[in-house]
Amino acid sequence: MRMYDVIERKRDGKDLSYEELEYFITGYCKGEIPDYQASALLMAIYLRGMNQRETADLTVIMANSGDRIDLSDIEGIKVDKHSTGGVGDKTTLVLAPIVAACGVPVAKISGRGLGHTGGTIDKLESIKGFRTSLTKDEFIDNVRSIGLSVAGQTGNMAPADKKLYALRDVTATVSNISLIASSIMSKKIASGTDRIVLDVKTGSGAFMKTFEDAAALAGEMVSIGEKTGRKTVALITNMDMPLGNAVGNALEVKEAVSALIGKGPADLEKVSFELAARMIELAGLGSIEYCRELVRKKIQDGSAIEKFSQMVRRQGGLHNIGDESWLADDAAFVTEVLSPADGYISSLRTDALGKVSVILGAGRETKESNIDHAAGIMLYKKPGMKVSKKELIARLYSSSNDRIHEAEAAFLDSISFDTAMHPQKPLILGYIDIHKTEIY
Amino acid sequence: MRMYDVIERKRDGKDLSYEELEYFITGYCKGEIPDYQASALLMAIYLRGMNQRETADLTVIMANSGDRIDLSDIEGIKVDKHSTGGVGDKTTLVLAPIVAACGVPVAKISGRGLGHTGGTIDKLESIKGFRTSLTKDEFIDNVRSIGLSVAGQTGNMAPADKKLYALRDVTATVSNISLIASSIMSKKIASGTDRIVLDVKTGSGAFMKTFEDAAALAGEMVSIGEKTGRKTVALITNMDMPLGNAVGNALEVKEAVSALIGKGPADLEKVSFELAARMIELAGLGSIEYCRELVRKKIQDGSAIEKFSQMVRRQGGLHNIGDESWLADDAAFVTEVLSPADGYISSLRTDALGKVSVILGAGRETKESNIDHAAGIMLYKKPGMKVSKKELIARLYSSSNDRIHEAEAAFLDSISFDTAMHPQKPLILGYIDIHKTEIY
Repeated sequence: MRMYDVIERKRDGKDLSYEELEYFITGYCKGEIPDYQASALLMAIYLRGMNQRETADLTVIMANSGDRIDLSDIEGIKVDKHSTGGVGDKTTLVLAPIVAACGVPVAKISGRGLGHTGGTIDKLESIKGFRTSLTKDEFIDNVRSIGLSVAGQTGNMAPADKKLYALRDVTATVSNISLIASSIMSKKIASGTDRIVLDVKTGSGAFMKTFEDAAALAGEMVSIGEKTGRKTVALITNMDMPLGNAVGNALEVKEAVSALIGKGPADLEKVSFELAARMIELAGLGSIEYCRELVRKKIQDGSAIEKFSQMVRRQGGLHNIGDESWLADDAAFVTEVLSPADGYISSLRTDALGKVSVILGAGRETKESNIDHAAGIMLYKKPGMKVSKKELIARLYSSSNDRIHEAEAAFLDSISFDTAMHPQKPLILGYIDIHKTEIY
Repeated sequence: MRMYDVIERKRDGKDLSYEELEYFITGYCKGEIPDYQASALLMAIYLRGMNQRETADLTVIMANSGDRIDLSDIEGIKVDKHSTGGVGDKTTLVLAPIVAACGVPVAKISGRGLGHTGGTIDKLESIKGFRTSLTKDEFIDNVRSIGLSVAGQTGNMAPADKKLYALRDVTATVSNISLIASSIMSKKIASGTDRIVLDVKTGSGAFMKTFEDAAALAGEMVSIGEKTGRKTVALITNMDMPLGNAVGNALEVKEAVSALIGKGPADLEKVSFELAARMIELAGLGSIEYCRELVRKKIQDGSAIEKFSQMVRRQGGLHNIGDESWLADDAAFVTEVLSPADGYISSLRTDALGKVSVILGAGRETKESNIDHAAGIMLYKKPGMKVSKKELIARLYSSSNDRIHEAEAAFLDSISFDTAMHPQKPLILGYIDIHKTEIY
């Protein structure tokens, strides 16, 4: 086989076989195929597309390129959740304890944030003493003991995806649905899960700005999951505004805890509880109606928050329900943002708001940046809501006084006001299950 | 400007500006833009295409990337001819002396052969003592003195094209009409000519196998020439069989000399004389009818062959008309190929025949190969002609006895026989001049 012929075939719109894709990926990882041939093929894939079989094959080949986590020592059906990323998206912190409290084991590998979206691992690290770097044995042992562990990536998972992504990033070949889907799903498959619930975000704070693009990505990922023998469903959810009111690591953990006792923001609870219900439905616990009811019960009887506390303690944190000293210290500087006018908040450029949180220190501009765990935004008014002049819209938190002023200007810049109310889209926009169709 | 944005724009089907193309080419030549970004852009260009303005811009930028020959010291309008390459294509040897004999200066930079097509410089080097490596001054001095010089490329002409071509060659991005056209025309523009006659070959021995592809390439090159202020016309000519009967360097020079005295093969004379007539028409000598008549006159009165002799002597060769000792020594081995059957030659895979000449030693497999100037093929029967069993079809010449036997098998393999006669296409298939239309 020659790389030239593989490029030529895709250039001419032909389908690539498993063997051709494997030849490309393994050769590229070994350094036998040069960057310039890989990037020519990536552009041909970008413009000619891949069918679902090719996309699934590429995914499996990338998953096989490194370590794969073996969860077979954990009894029961393991269900994972993946979000495509948004601002204020702390659903993992809420749903993982709920699902574990329902008796479905949660062995979750999570990532760090980069750019305008946050990462679960960064959030958890705002808990004093909490360890996210676990050995494989510790991780599996935690799940076997308390049914729940959330840890950062260990070992060398899907290195082919990492290498390919770095090349795509500099050759304008990132934004292709098949390539995005196989990149995400290769890591899910390597993480050893049996079934997958996807939360594909759409809107001003998401990578997929339109519903159509989000639905296409969701469909592609569901297809990959099913083609590789993992039952997979997807929710398409609204990211036209942050989920909940908190953006920033410690602030989001606090908000997640409030949702775990049924006192969180309605939007956060709705999305988190629905994702949790879909996960336990996928694990075979019963109808979706039954699963939704079970989720509510685990909140009401305190077993969800208790499961969260168990996880925190087991991974080195000091959490006791009702005691807030377990979180990172408060930010040194706080400023209140007041409404400049009477009227309604008509829209929020959510990605810009995510960047405000980065300015405050809550996120990373580059992979090497440090996180200020106490930094962030508490949003008291969201799009669609009425505001009076000088009314409190938000509080900004930072350990830097300079940054807080820069952030305040950027914050106001991300919000639009109007005299009339603008209707907002629903929270859950779609559901994809190749075995059935449901309307939200 | 960022290369990423340039790639993205072409990926999305947008036109690139002169500044964007120049940024790409100069950055790539300086090594500031890496191969992997260049190849991603090339694939995007391949699949999205370039319009004629972009193609002309790319051509000029590549022509400007190295040395440009200045022919302004030579009086008169300089007309160049370029052939896209074929088997047995010795038209330059015939038309250059004719055009010079008509008083139109010919300052021709020619190339060497590679693969199944030969090169004018290799052919001329089968003349004992003939120097093809001239200094710029010698070259221009020759044209000023006798109106004619043919030399190999000196200096660093269109290095951007050379570097880009090497990358296209390994990334399956060669066979794009715009890229092929700009590659050829960048060298023509750098060679300093005022006007250009193109001979675009089509058929089994040409790079463009179909008339449609040849016409598209011809149209693209004419557009580039005109857009850059050089009147340019194109003939589309048949390469379903070799031009003339000789394939191989010394054999082709002999055949060209016979055409210069009006005793050459009819097909070679027809194409060479028509190209010559178009060149002097382009130089402004008169109507095409007048120019054709002038060409015939220069053959008949001996001034064409005399001009050829002048050039040979001036560049170090020993040619005197009627004396054949000036050519490379005869080949050590000759074999006669006889027809295996009664019937007609129905077709010839001309590219395969070109490869037979390479086996015999007449061409290069790699850039480093040496040429056997006496090696080659004399073809006595061509497609459409009747043959009897055991009748002489061809003679093969080589300095290697082993090679001659390998070549004989490959030769027979390249020819098809049939009991019925197959009509052959005309020699001149089309003519492109954006200022007028003529039918052949």
